[in-house]
Amino acid sequence: MEKTVESRIIYRGKIINLRLDNVVLENGNSATREIVEHPGAVGIIAIKDNGDIVLVRQYRKAVEQVLLELPAGKLEKGEDPKVCAARELAEETGYRAKKMVYLSRYYTSPGFSNEVMHMYIATGLKDGERNPDEDELVDTVEISLERAVDMAIKGEIMDAKTIIGIMMLNRGISH
Amino acid sequence: MEKTVESRIIYRGKIINLRLDNVVLENGNSATREIVEHPGAVGIIAIKDNGDIVLVRQYRKAVEQVLLELPAGKLEKGEDPKVCAARELAEETGYRAKKMVYLSRYYTSPGFSNEVMHMYIATGLKDGERNPDEDELVDTVEISLERAVDMAIKGEIMDAKTIIGIMMLNRGISH
Repeated sequence: MEKTVESRIIYRGKIINLRLDNVVLENGNSATREIVEHPGAVGIIAIKDNGDIVLVRQYRKAVEQVLLELPAGKLEKGEDPKVCAARELAEETGYRAKKMVYLSRYYTSPGFSNEVMHMYIATGLKDGERNPDEDELVDTVEISLERAVDMAIKGEIMDAKTIIGIMMLNRGISH
Repeated sequence: MEKTVESRIIYRGKIINLRLDNVVLENGNSATREIVEHPGAVGIIAIKDNGDIVLVRQYRKAVEQVLLELPAGKLEKGEDPKVCAARELAEETGYRAKKMVYLSRYYTSPGFSNEVMHMYIATGLKDGERNPDEDELVDTVEISLERAVDMAIKGEIMDAKTIIGIMMLNRGISH
């Protein structure tokens, strides 16, 4: 436990807030924690009837690079992660899923951020219209799970949620 | 690609900086990107001679929770990730590794952060003195890989680097 002595919001943004907490540790020492507040996000492992995984390719300004990722998006205020997963899948890929099943969740970088990523497996995909946000330019890429695992291991897939989704699916976790 | 029109540093911190970039997209639309600059980090999969994995248990203020994680830490300015991995392993667990091999790297949350996590596998562990940072209170926990995989799948291990390290090791990736 760390006791918060003082807490200040430095920045309130569209996606994240930045907060500074002065804390006292169990050993009596003091420290300042830089904390990025994030509303949480969902990542969707969308599996086609032929077994292919649906990925999206998009430019990520933060890393100045085009990345291959699972469809994903941040939670709107008060939004159910499962509803968010269906919304983001449709927006980014056009697919509607007959079945959307919770897989797991994890913290992306708990040293400085409270972002939690909720992972879902989508099956029974039906093609439909895409409707990405106006500041999102994404392409869809469909590849086999085997190829995806290979790309994750070779470092050709570099996004955490995508690596985790692929590795977990590969282990046959689809309860 | 996104063309940067304006870039402002909002906050310069101990671990992270916050930057706002105004960008123009390929379709001509404008957007603001909130970017958390991070120096990068290392995560270490330390394997004992008996096959157990060395984890650390520590309170994480950002998520207000005690987490079980791989030993890890952020890169000092200009530091070689491999050197950082050896340093962090010793500081947090006391172990010195005879062999430290690069496994992979990934982006923790490329939607808003440039943090890259470099993953290493440490073997030939020799016990020594621990020397954690004064604002770090960590306990060491040693468990079998099988148990670690089980905990990752059940959501008892919730940290991204730890899940990725365990799942990759479990697949037999230790080149």
